[in-house]
Amino acid sequence: MQYPEPIAKLIDSYTKLPGIGIKTATRLAFYTIDMPEEDVTSFAQSLISAKRDLHFCSICGNLTETDPCVICSDNSRDQSTVLVVAEVKDLMAIENTGEYKALYHVLHGVLSPLEGKGPDDINIESLVNRLQKDDTIQEVIVATNANAEGEATAMYLSRLLKPAGLKVSRLATGLSVGSDIDYADQITLIKAVEGRTQL
Amino acid sequence: MQYPEPIAKLIDSYTKLPGIGIKTATRLAFYTIDMPEEDVTSFAQSLISAKRDLHFCSICGNLTETDPCVICSDNSRDQSTVLVVAEVKDLMAIENTGEYKALYHVLHGVLSPLEGKGPDDINIESLVNRLQKDDTIQEVIVATNANAEGEATAMYLSRLLKPAGLKVSRLATGLSVGSDIDYADQITLIKAVEGRTQL
Repeated sequence: MQYPEPIAKLIDSYTKLPGIGIKTATRLAFYTIDMPEEDVTSFAQSLISAKRDLHFCSICGNLTETDPCVICSDNSRDQSTVLVVAEVKDLMAIENTGEYKALYHVLHGVLSPLEGKGPDDINIESLVNRLQKDDTIQEVIVATNANAEGEATAMYLSRLLKPAGLKVSRLATGLSVGSDIDYADQITLIKAVEGRTQL
Repeated sequence: MQYPEPIAKLIDSYTKLPGIGIKTATRLAFYTIDMPEEDVTSFAQSLISAKRDLHFCSICGNLTETDPCVICSDNSRDQSTVLVVAEVKDLMAIENTGEYKALYHVLHGVLSPLEGKGPDDINIESLVNRLQKDDTIQEVIVATNANAEGEATAMYLSRLLKPAGLKVSRLATGLSVGSDIDYADQITLIKAVEGRTQL
């Protein structure tokens, strides 16, 4: 016997989300049925709205309702620096520190030979075009993840952009604030010693 | 800085689901934006439909689109036995074995003094009414979970229904099929010895 169709469809929809198998999907579907009507309606509306009303900023690739996005259209920001991130989530993480007050560029991915992702599959061409058109940009900070793919992407961008006379930098690698030296992995320790700062 | 409103709302909706915190909700929301348009639309529709089109069967409490449900309206089933479960999921688990061909009753909960759930908070009154009205029912099988609350609910139902001359039984407790004796917990082993079957 199958579940009644409405709940079978809902279970099916939940299983399409990442990391959610049939057991969790069933639990979520039954939970949904017990949720207040207005919560379910607003859930459905926000699904539709997130898909319909959000676009990528034509300048930086950020997720936005307006084009250009609020960051690109904010003239009070330092227009000479562009921080390059892989995903919109990374942009938000840096933006939420409240310390960085310049521009961004979202690649929507990193170079990954294993997944067959080359320079043409991520948002690099628009970055190059942007840098060619806009003379005020002096520095590019590459803020990709500190793993093999992130490093490879940073190296690629560095080689691509440095010949144009731009300053290209990378986020520092080292100990996380609050962490213990004896719990840190060897490569992090090596990088932390290499990148030591003068007191 | 906040996420654009459509995605902030979607993240908020996801966090209302059980076991989903802000980090997972953010991941799911970004995943949703990359999903095909038709999958998102059908997800939203199935949310609305599950809430709108599903009701509880007025006889047994099963989730159903029609009333009475397909099980209660199936006359080929044995009408003399009612299997009592706590949740619709338990009904489906037993139904999917394909071996049980009689009726069900869903309590929508178990007795739980810790959560303040007494006999009036679960679907017991409708079970009693059903048994009083329907003379063909001879046996009630209590299939609540094999934990303290499930046992308490079974004991309560047994004391309530036995005086009316009904046969009340409980699912067997013992070793799971395929399990190792030396991995079984003590209480399961005691129950398995007590409930031994003649070969």
